[in-house]
Amino acid sequence: MTIDTYDGTGVKPSHWNLGSVIEQLRVSREATHNIRHHGKVRELPSREALTIIVNGLSAALFPTHYGRPNLTDESIDYFVGDTLNTTLNRLTEQVRRGLQFSLEDAVPDDEELTRQANAITREFAAGLPGIRGLLVSDVQAAFSGDPAATSVAEIMLCYPGTIAILYYRLAHSLHRLGSPFLARLISDIGHSLTGIDIHPGAQIGGSFFIDHGTGVVIGETAILGQRVRLYQHVTLGAKRFPADEKGSLIKGVPRHPVVEDDVVIYAGATILGRITIGAGSTIGGNVWLTQSVPAGSNVSQAQMRND
Amino acid sequence: MTIDTYDGTGVKPSHWNLGSVIEQLRVSREATHNIRHHGKVRELPSREALTIIVNGLSAALFPTHYGRPNLTDESIDYFVGDTLNTTLNRLTEQVRRGLQFSLEDAVPDDEELTRQANAITREFAAGLPGIRGLLVSDVQAAFSGDPAATSVAEIMLCYPGTIAILYYRLAHSLHRLGSPFLARLISDIGHSLTGIDIHPGAQIGGSFFIDHGTGVVIGETAILGQRVRLYQHVTLGAKRFPADEKGSLIKGVPRHPVVEDDVVIYAGATILGRITIGAGSTIGGNVWLTQSVPAGSNVSQAQMRND
Amino acid sequence: MTIDTYDGTGVKPSHWNLGSVIEQLRVSREATHNIRHHGKVRELPSREALTIIVNGLSAALFPTHYGRPNLTDESIDYFVGDTLNTTLNRLTEQVRRGLQFSLEDAVPDDEELTRQANAITREFAAGLPGIRGLLVSDVQAAFSGDPAATSVAEIMLCYPGTIAILYYRLAHSLHRLGSPFLARLISDIGHSLTGIDIHPGAQIGGSFFIDHGTGVVIGETAILGQRVRLYQHVTLGAKRFPADEKGSLIKGVPRHPVVEDDVVIYAGATILGRITIGAGSTIGGNVWLTQSVPAGSNVSQAQMRND
Amino acid sequence: MTIDTYDGTGVKPSHWNLGSVIEQLRVSREATHNIRHHGKVRELPSREALTIIVNGLSAALFPTHYGRPNLTDESIDYFVGDTLNTTLNRLTEQVRRGLQFSLEDAVPDDEELTRQANAITREFAAGLPGIRGLLVSDVQAAFSGDPAATSVAEIMLCYPGTIAILYYRLAHSLHRLGSPFLARLISDIGHSLTGIDIHPGAQIGGSFFIDHGTGVVIGETAILGQRVRLYQHVTLGAKRFPADEKGSLIKGVPRHPVVEDDVVIYAGATILGRITIGAGSTIGGNVWLTQSVPAGSNVSQAQMRND
Amino acid sequence: MTIDTYDGTGVKPSHWNLGSVIEQLRVSREATHNIRHHGKVRELPSREALTIIVNGLSAALFPTHYGRPNLTDESIDYFVGDTLNTTLNRLTEQVRRGLQFSLEDAVPDDEELTRQANAITREFAAGLPGIRGLLVSDVQAAFSGDPAATSVAEIMLCYPGTIAILYYRLAHSLHRLGSPFLARLISDIGHSLTGIDIHPGAQIGGSFFIDHGTGVVIGETAILGQRVRLYQHVTLGAKRFPADEKGSLIKGVPRHPVVEDDVVIYAGATILGRITIGAGSTIGGNVWLTQSVPAGSNVSQAQMRND
Amino acid sequence: MTIDTYDGTGVKPSHWNLGSVIEQLRVSREATHNIRHHGKVRELPSREALTIIVNGLSAALFPTHYGRPNLTDESIDYFVGDTLNTTLNRLTEQVRRGLQFSLEDAVPDDEELTRQANAITREFAAGLPGIRGLLVSDVQAAFSGDPAATSVAEIMLCYPGTIAILYYRLAHSLHRLGSPFLARLISDIGHSLTGIDIHPGAQIGGSFFIDHGTGVVIGETAILGQRVRLYQHVTLGAKRFPADEKGSLIKGVPRHPVVEDDVVIYAGATILGRITIGAGSTIGGNVWLTQSVPAGSNVSQAQMRND
Repeated sequence: MTIDTYDGTGVKPSHWNLGSVIEQLRVSREATHNIRHHGKVRELPSREALTIIVNGLSAALFPTHYGRPNLTDESIDYFVGDTLNTTLNRLTEQVRRGLQFSLEDAVPDDEELTRQANAITREFAAGLPGIRGLLVSDVQAAFSGDPAATSVAEIMLCYPGTIAILYYRLAHSLHRLGSPFLARLISDIGHSLTGIDIHPGAQIGGSFFIDHGTGVVIGETAILGQRVRLYQHVTLGAKRFPADEKGSLIKGVPRHPVVEDDVVIYAGATILGRITIGAGSTIGGNVWLTQSVPAGSNVSQAQMRND
Repeated sequence: MTIDTYDGTGVKPSHWNLGSVIEQLRVSREATHNIRHHGKVRELPSREALTIIVNGLSAALFPTHYGRPNLTDESIDYFVGDTLNTTLNRLTEQVRRGLQFSLEDAVPDDEELTRQANAITREFAAGLPGIRGLLVSDVQAAFSGDPAATSVAEIMLCYPGTIAILYYRLAHSLHRLGSPFLARLISDIGHSLTGIDIHPGAQIGGSFFIDHGTGVVIGETAILGQRVRLYQHVTLGAKRFPADEKGSLIKGVPRHPVVEDDVVIYAGATILGRITIGAGSTIGGNVWLTQSVPAGSNVSQAQMRND
Repeated sequence: MTIDTYDGTGVKPSHWNLGSVIEQLRVSREATHNIRHHGKVRELPSREALTIIVNGLSAALFPTHYGRPNLTDESIDYFVGDTLNTTLNRLTEQVRRGLQFSLEDAVPDDEELTRQANAITREFAAGLPGIRGLLVSDVQAAFSGDPAATSVAEIMLCYPGTIAILYYRLAHSLHRLGSPFLARLISDIGHSLTGIDIHPGAQIGGSFFIDHGTGVVIGETAILGQRVRLYQHVTLGAKRFPADEKGSLIKGVPRHPVVEDDVVIYAGATILGRITIGAGSTIGGNVWLTQSVPAGSNVSQAQMRND
Repeated sequence: MTIDTYDGTGVKPSHWNLGSVIEQLRVSREATHNIRHHGKVRELPSREALTIIVNGLSAALFPTHYGRPNLTDESIDYFVGDTLNTTLNRLTEQVRRGLQFSLEDAVPDDEELTRQANAITREFAAGLPGIRGLLVSDVQAAFSGDPAATSVAEIMLCYPGTIAILYYRLAHSLHRLGSPFLARLISDIGHSLTGIDIHPGAQIGGSFFIDHGTGVVIGETAILGQRVRLYQHVTLGAKRFPADEKGSLIKGVPRHPVVEDDVVIYAGATILGRITIGAGSTIGGNVWLTQSVPAGSNVSQAQMRND
Repeated sequence: MTIDTYDGTGVKPSHWNLGSVIEQLRVSREATHNIRHHGKVRELPSREALTIIVNGLSAALFPTHYGRPNLTDESIDYFVGDTLNTTLNRLTEQVRRGLQFSLEDAVPDDEELTRQANAITREFAAGLPGIRGLLVSDVQAAFSGDPAATSVAEIMLCYPGTIAILYYRLAHSLHRLGSPFLARLISDIGHSLTGIDIHPGAQIGGSFFIDHGTGVVIGETAILGQRVRLYQHVTLGAKRFPADEKGSLIKGVPRHPVVEDDVVIYAGATILGRITIGAGSTIGGNVWLTQSVPAGSNVSQAQMRND
Repeated sequence: MTIDTYDGTGVKPSHWNLGSVIEQLRVSREATHNIRHHGKVRELPSREALTIIVNGLSAALFPTHYGRPNLTDESIDYFVGDTLNTTLNRLTEQVRRGLQFSLEDAVPDDEELTRQANAITREFAAGLPGIRGLLVSDVQAAFSGDPAATSVAEIMLCYPGTIAILYYRLAHSLHRLGSPFLARLISDIGHSLTGIDIHPGAQIGGSFFIDHGTGVVIGETAILGQRVRLYQHVTLGAKRFPADEKGSLIKGVPRHPVVEDDVVIYAGATILGRITIGAGSTIGGNVWLTQSVPAGSNVSQAQMRND
């Protein structure tokens, strides 16, 4: 009834036929694929670690908004440096774990694995200033694109689109550098926080703005140009999945839309397949689109009717 | 300005007319229904406890993915056994609390309530190996159904659909065993984590796959067969709610769709009412469907138009 | 490998070219707008603080559901009073911080800022009993509007719509009293928890019910009457954004729908622009609507077709 | 290597012959007395709960020093009332657990046990204002007795003697009301924090001052008058323990010193047995004393010598 | 019975006559001195904050032992800089609070108080390298003085004397710079951790070593030279306290021993009054000494006798 | 002023001349020995990890007192097994780290180091049942030796001597198996909790009882027989430390007392040097003893005098 119940010690015990359930669970485990691979344990990357890592990277990139607002000219570089160092140390361990899954049968020995993880992390670090530049362009796009936005601080603190794009840009960098499993985990954390699901494999230009955002889905092979603007529930998905002669899905084939520069897609539009939305087009709300449209198109849904 | 502000002790005090506000809140409370029922306090189940319980069950079902990856053949059953025992002790207490709400006017005395809670929890435990089997089929369906999936670990760690189905299958078992209030709470936690809203009363066969998932809604009396695949924003809802002669809604009437085996429903489709989607049908994105369709149907939205 | 790795101390170190990355990040920071404003640091409101504040307000408003279920007649007012006092102390500090952003160039000196924050918070406190009354009407609307609802407790604990409306009503009160930045942060926290995005500027009458809710978006200038009911993915948005002669968006212009009393809007409907949905109307699922409809209208989507 | 190692999941596994060690531990457990008593589990009081309880009582007794310094006239009674209510609820549960041990073979049924725990806790609560009065006299004694003390706040926050006496006075009240096991646990927590070991059975008058305090021991049957002052390492202990004819120690016999009003005992003095130190006496440092001394005595150690 | 009991919400409620107890506590509070001083709240320094501050200072002084062992040449200064900056920010707030008590009736206005706190903290920071030098000499004295010591790491991590001296040297610096209240709090935290009670006013030379340490007491005006070595239970105390004509103790008068260079004092020795222990002397265990001894003295206790 | 100040972000910034202080600290670090050894980082064992490890071992040894009181016959071995496995995994990592310091210049490569750590941990695990047996004898000695003890539970939960002996017996086992650095850290944690300082190298027989205990010191080479009983402030120390011809202390030489079976040593006695206290002797309080005494001796302090 008290504090020690936090770990279950204060709960009245009962009899649960544990032996039988445990036996059946063991049998069930042994009947299915498990995490042991070629006889060795593969360590799983940790969601909690990655959450802390993304928080650390956010703080290093935007120290006054996502780090500590009370930094001074005297102290800010110490904060950035220490945060970055700790975060990169943590990241390299997660990259190492993720490689065991990404590399599948070609997992090298421990020393080589660590060397590759360090190399990826170092390159990732080198790309951070570039990522910061893209994110600044995204925030500016939000500010100029939303009449409800009153300040940069509001966009950085209150817009789920900002968070989703931040997670995406970090995940995409890792994906590109050869750490796809980790990238996927980071992007799923961003999805869980915002309801916006961007596959880390997607390629997205600068000044990207997602308003409201819940339900947005952007697929693995989608390509978005500069200054694209999306609203909630927009899907940039695949239409069908080609299978090989054995019926297995062929992975990695381009199957999601190409969205050119300056396209706006309104709430609920579903755009499927390797089609191209020409530059400057506007796609209306709830539209279901599976064919390419030329630059400057204006697509809207069929008329509703009153009963 | 420092650490002690964590509990508010460092914040500058002011005068808030507390007496007046507190008085009005008391009046407001006394004017409405409250949680006291027949003169005794009904303890509320705890969201935090249930979160820990679902984590415990996940760890017992899939120890290497959701528990501890470093378990050995020597140690794994100790982990499963201890986790299960602690978790079932906690669960029985929550089931007991939930019964006070589910049983309404027929709440028995404390001893009988505890006996019923223990019985439900024991039966729930006995069903866990079966639930594990279903979940394994769901993960395999995801792996074979999504070309972007690269490993079982990715599906278990990065797919919100996996988490939503895990929460659903546990909640459904409790719902079926007579603990609907608790089942509802668990399913709402899953909803909050994933954006996927599956009522614990729904019946869903094996090899179930939800891709992306944000915005999926599956109603209380829906029935889904084997190998159903859903995409984001799909609604399997009710069309209208029959009321009795006094105008009160009649609860529990079948009012959601029946989806037969091997049906695929694409993003944004809204399917309402007690209709049947025949086996093997494909429902296109954004479709709004309120009538049954035969097996093998292929339903898509009316054409959009270019302005 | 052990506990001290929680703060990164157990992670193998490597060399990251920190100096170069830090230098580039500094250059990038100095090239963009930053949080320093007219030479002084503006303290950012804290998401964590606001989460604790909303929890505190919820507990003071509904002590047995969101506070402590074991309160007695002897103890309940002490709990409400202490919770309210602590929470209002915290809130006034956050209001103070938020004002620095809302007031922009007209930020007064520290003493005046604190005076304004205290005044807003005191007026906010005075409005809490009224907010409680509205929330009670919302819960009752949910109970009578959803056949799956079995008790008031279920609606208060398991319905994301309840949580979203609670966050909205608190945020709206702060917005109205002159604390828009803080209001926005609170409403974004509610959005993140529930997938329901209600701008704190929207005006919404009593007995409001949102079922399922993921993906609902209600814009800044929307006006909703009494007894409105919404389902998931409903958008009450803007159609286009008027710009001034320089091309800048004009902020604050009424641009979202007016929804009159007793309107029901089904899942996925997208309603855009300053149009009016007449009292008692029903808008069907997935409808895309950009023109006013008279009272009692019944709008549904064009027919789908079978291929 | 990362965060998940907090619960041991990141540590490299090895093989430990668990089966054999567990088997031997089981045999060892079964060979000794255990906590099961007459076939039912006796719940142990919790050190963590008691620590929180003593903190709660301290805060209720001295809200501005041990509670929240920012309380106002408007808010202080709400704080005291809510803190007291929560703390007494927790305490009654611990008292109930403790009674199972104190009452030994005469443990009544659950309902009666709860009734007794409630009665003890209610009487304890009624005694709190009296305890506060004694503690105020103790603090004043410290202020007037130590030339290094500069303020009441310093004595309340920086003097281990203050903390030890606070723990003692709370524990003694529970001891007197029939909850000796709980009293003992509270006094041991105080000992661990301060190095001062006062048995809760000891009787100690007001205006009591312990300076520095590490190593002070005051036995179960010791009686101290008003205005007694002790320094570090003073022992008020037993000389020998009378045994019954079977050789078992006779428990509860008066066997510790009686120290009358206004006695000062300097560092390291060891005073053993049921002797009386007459009022106003001074006992020098490191003295070893086993015989009564009359009022006004001045006892010091034999002379040291220089080699 | 579950997690929510952590904050007391799961504990069975009872009736405690709260109104009466609260009323009596209010009366008791109003009858005694309280923390309000000249009508304004004085904020208390926080033990928790100071613990974090001392940990931060320790980490900045000895980054690899008390900070993060995995620092590299590239990263160590970032860690030291960021830790120091955060810690000094926190410290200045605590110094500010402490000044309100140290300055008593002469507390200046807020701005001046902050200015003084900043000045003290800046000077304290400037003295840190000097403190580090002294601490290094202390550790080396332990290494060469204890045959059981096997490494510097052992002395830094396992010796309570090291911790006690670290707390003392930091507290003494603050005491000297005009922050005596804060110094006292820090030294009491050190006392609580180690059982070693060193008043921050004491002056202690380099290469100081305390072995075992429990029960050591060093008074406010004690002066210790270089290379002094103490064992457990040694008291360097006051003999009597001079009072003024009104009977009040005169504060601050030199009343504790002067211990010259290279003195060793064995366990349990009690040395009282403003006497001088000449350089190079050895004081035996349990000796009670109240007169000065010349340099090179060898003092031991009178012979024990066998009964 | 709010929650974010927990990590210092809400504290008003100031200017601290960081650059200069950091520079001086770097110079100071480079002038002294540091933790880098032969060019590689030696990871320090973690106090926090060891605290969790000792808690885990305590829980595995005495599950109902130090683990979970609500264990059943069905569940207890799962708890013991899982707790033991987790704890031994953690311990082996700490042993590995400790070996780097114990082995000094002979630190082997990583693989061999891990092999040795595993071997020590496995042997340690095998010895746990034996340690449990000794601890049971110690608890029984306390119960029969203290007239104030009312139950075994009281001795296990409220006696610092019990905790100190538990820490000692675990530390001694590690010391004996070749992990002296780790043993020392564990014993210092026990010292900090209880004020009782037992060097892990000391050899102590069964049925050992320490009453009150604050200030007890037992040196590295002390040997205690069966059924020894000690009171507070007893020192079993070294008299002098032999040095080699260079003046360095010779480490490891027997220099502490041998205490034979059934000896009782009362409070404050100081016993120094490699002397023998014969079986069955009684040493009185505050005695200073540096010569052996035969079996059955009764030693007490010289008489005090009344001034």
